[in-house]
Amino acid sequence: MAERHLKVQLLLTGNEIMSGDTVDSNSALIARRLGELAITVHRKVTVGDDVALLQAELAAMADDSDLVIVNGGLGPTVDDLTAEVLARVTGVGLEEHPDALAHLQDWCGRRRLPLNAANLKQAMLPAGAGIVPNPIGSAVGFEMPVGSCRVICTPGVPGELAAMLDGIVADLARRMDRPMQRSILRLQTFGLGESTAQQMISDGISDWPAEVELGFRAGAPQMEIKLSIDDSAALPARQRCREQLEQLFGDHIIGEGDTTLATRVLELLRERGATLTTAESCTGGLIASMLTRIPGSSEAFHAGFVTYANNIKHTVLGVDEQVLAREGAVSEPVVRQMALGAIERSGAQYAIAVSGIAGPDGGTPEKPVGTVWLAWGSRDNLRSLCLRWPVERTLFQTMIAAAGLDMIRRTLLGLDSEPRYFGQRRV
Amino acid sequence: MAERHLKVQLLLTGNEIMSGDTVDSNSALIARRLGELAITVHRKVTVGDDVALLQAELAAMADDSDLVIVNGGLGPTVDDLTAEVLARVTGVGLEEHPDALAHLQDWCGRRRLPLNAANLKQAMLPAGAGIVPNPIGSAVGFEMPVGSCRVICTPGVPGELAAMLDGIVADLARRMDRPMQRSILRLQTFGLGESTAQQMISDGISDWPAEVELGFRAGAPQMEIKLSIDDSAALPARQRCREQLEQLFGDHIIGEGDTTLATRVLELLRERGATLTTAESCTGGLIASMLTRIPGSSEAFHAGFVTYANNIKHTVLGVDEQVLAREGAVSEPVVRQMALGAIERSGAQYAIAVSGIAGPDGGTPEKPVGTVWLAWGSRDNLRSLCLRWPVERTLFQTMIAAAGLDMIRRTLLGLDSEPRYFGQRRV
Repeated sequence: MAERHLKVQLLLTGNEIMSGDTVDSNSALIARRLGELAITVHRKVTVGDDVALLQAELAAMADDSDLVIVNGGLGPTVDDLTAEVLARVTGVGLEEHPDALAHLQDWCGRRRLPLNAANLKQAMLPAGAGIVPNPIGSAVGFEMPVGSCRVICTPGVPGELAAMLDGIVADLARRMDRPMQRSILRLQTFGLGESTAQQMISDGISDWPAEVELGFRAGAPQMEIKLSIDDSAALPARQRCREQLEQLFGDHIIGEGDTTLATRVLELLRERGATLTTAESCTGGLIASMLTRIPGSSEAFHAGFVTYANNIKHTVLGVDEQVLAREGAVSEPVVRQMALGAIERSGAQYAIAVSGIAGPDGGTPEKPVGTVWLAWGSRDNLRSLCLRWPVERTLFQTMIAAAGLDMIRRTLLGLDSEPRYFGQRRV
Repeated sequence: MAERHLKVQLLLTGNEIMSGDTVDSNSALIARRLGELAITVHRKVTVGDDVALLQAELAAMADDSDLVIVNGGLGPTVDDLTAEVLARVTGVGLEEHPDALAHLQDWCGRRRLPLNAANLKQAMLPAGAGIVPNPIGSAVGFEMPVGSCRVICTPGVPGELAAMLDGIVADLARRMDRPMQRSILRLQTFGLGESTAQQMISDGISDWPAEVELGFRAGAPQMEIKLSIDDSAALPARQRCREQLEQLFGDHIIGEGDTTLATRVLELLRERGATLTTAESCTGGLIASMLTRIPGSSEAFHAGFVTYANNIKHTVLGVDEQVLAREGAVSEPVVRQMALGAIERSGAQYAIAVSGIAGPDGGTPEKPVGTVWLAWGSRDNLRSLCLRWPVERTLFQTMIAAAGLDMIRRTLLGLDSEPRYFGQRRV
C-alpha cells in the first residue's frame, strides 16, 4: 500500500440508513479515526441491503482503491449480507470460521444465551478471510484482499464499530511507513458569519500558503475555523496564518479546540474567583443550561432566575412595577433592574440579564419579534444594549444566550472594542 | 418520470462530512421526506469538495436515475462548488440569476448586512437553471435537467434544507401520476427502550399485519414508534395495531406526531388554566429551557429557579439551612422544600424540583454519580422519588429533565400507575 496517499473508500449498507430512519454516524467515526493517521476518505457510497447492488459497488470500489472499509450487514438476520457479498466478489464460498465460532460460543456463554441458528450465521465467513476481533458484540469483523485492495468488513452497531476501530487504526499505523499524524488547529469564533470571514480572509491575506488547508464549520452559535497541515514542516506557516487570523478577527476568536463561550466564561470566572448569575426572560433558562452543562460549573455559577412573566420580574427580582408598566418588559431600565436584582439575590459579582421577544407572537411595530435588551456586568459597571435578531424562535434563543455570554467574556477580559455584530444588529 | 418507481440517488458533498467533523443527517432527512411519497432512495454517494470528482459522480448518477438530489456546496466560500459542477455537467456557463440576486439582496437587506462579493457568488448559477426557493437562508436552491434526469441542488445547512424540502416534496407530489402519500403514524413514548419495546411487541402481538410497517426511532429523551402504510386500505389494520400498542405501552405513550413532553405538559396546563414552576439544581435550567423553547409557553410557565449552590437553595427558595446541612442537597426533604419554595415565590399551582449528582465529580459511596431526588406536584399533593440514572452528564441532565416533565404530565392526567423506568431506576 502506498502509505501517505492510501486511497480509501467506504461502503455502507443498511435499509435503515437508506430510509433515513437511522442517521449514519459510523462513516464520520471511521473518517475521524483514519484522519488521525492523515488518511483522507476519498468517497463513500451507501446502498440498501441488496446483494447484487452491494456486489457491484464493492467490486468497483476494490478495483479503484487501496483500502475499502465496509460497514454494516454483519448481524444475524437474513438482511445481513456482507459475508455473502465479499464471498461473491472474491469468488469463494462461505464456511464456518473456527475463531468466529469460538467467539460466538464465548459471547453467548457469558450471557447465558443459547447459541441459535441466527447467531451461527455470524460464523459463516468467506473462505480464507481473516478475523477482526469485536471486543463487544457477537459478530466478528473480517478482512481479505480483493485484487490489490484490502477489504475490511465492520459491524453497524456504533459501539462495536468504535471498539473494533481501535484495533484497525493501530494495525494501519503499524503497516504504514511514516505514521504521520495530520495536525488540525481549530479556532472558535462568535459573531462572524462564514461569508464575512471568507471575505475578510480573501481581502486581508493575499499570500495564504498552499500547505495550510483552510476550512470553516458554521454552527449556531459558534463558527469554527480549521487550519490543517499534513507535515510538521508546515507548522511555522500555520503559525503565521494563525497570527494573521488573530489580527483580522481579533477578539471574535474565543479560543482553540473545543472551547465554547460557556467554557471560556467559566474559565475566566474561575481565574478571577468570581461568580455569575443570570436573569432570563426570552432565553428561558438556556444561558443557565449552557453553563451548567459544563462539568465543574458549580464553582462559578450558583444561581439563575427565569423570570418569564412581568409580575415575576417584580416579585422575584425586585423590578419596579411602575417601570414595568411604563416602559414594558423589553426595555433598558427593566433589564438593568433584572441584572441588579439577580446580583443582589445571588451574591454573584457578575450578571447577564435578557428580555426580548422570541416570537412568533408578541411583536409590536415599535418592538418587533427579534428585539431584545441585554444588560451585563457588575453592580458598579453594568452595561446595556438593544439588539434586533429576527430569526426563528429557538435560533434566536441560542444566539441571544450566546451573545449574553460573549458580553460577559468581553467584560471579564476588559475588552472595550465593539463586536462586529453590534453594528449590524444594534437598534 | 416513472412515478411510483422513480429511481432516485443522492449526491452529498462537503469536506467536513468526508473528514467526519460533521455527521451527515441531511441525507436521512431527504430519505424520510421522500419516503412520505413512497419514494425509496436507491443509492447515495458522498465526496469531498473536488470539482472533477463531483463532476464525474453527478454525470454518472444522472445517467442512471430519474432524479438526483445534490446536497451541500451552495455556500459563499471557494469550496462551495455545486453550481460550477452542474454547469460543467450540462455544458453551460455560470451567469448571475436575477431571482437569486433579488433573494440575496432581500435577505441581506432584512438583516442590514452588506452584500459582499462572497455572497454574490451565490447568485451565479448554471445558465437556464430554475430556482428552488430557500425560505430561510441566503443561498437559493436550483434545478435543471441532465439528459432525462432531473437534478435538484439543495443547501447543506440542515434548517435551510428542511425548509426547502417542504416545497420540493409538494412539487414532486404534484408531478406524480398517482400522488399517493405514504401515511406514517408516529407515536411518541418516554421511558421505553427500543429493545424492550420490540420484545414487548413480539411477545404481545402475534398477528401483526404485513401491510403495516413497524419502525422505531430511538432518541433522547423520547422514542418514536412509526406505523407506516402505503395504501389507505390498510388504515383499519393500522388502527387495530395502534390500539394494541396502546394496550401494551399504556401511559408511556405521550402523544402523536411531533408531541414532546414539554408540548404535552404545556397543553395540559393550558387546558386546566394552571401554571408550572421549576426549581432546578443538577438540571441547571434545562427544564425551563425545554418549556420556553415552545411558542406560547409564557401562558403556563412564568418563573423558574436555578439553585445550583446550597446557600442559594436557602436564600432564594427558603430551604431550611439545618436540613441542608444534615441531609445534604441531594435529599428528599431538600427537594420537597425546593418545590414548595418555588410554588410560594412564583404563585404557580405546580412545581418540578430536582437535585442530583450529574457528575463526573461529586459522587459519594452513598450517593454515587447519577443519584437524583425529584419532587413534583402541587402544594397539597407533592410527591417525591429518588432515581439512579448513571449516564454521561449531559444525557443525565436530558433524561432527568424529561423525567420531571413526565411526572407532571402524569400528575396532570391523574395517572397513578408507576412508569416502567421507576422499577429499573428507583433507589
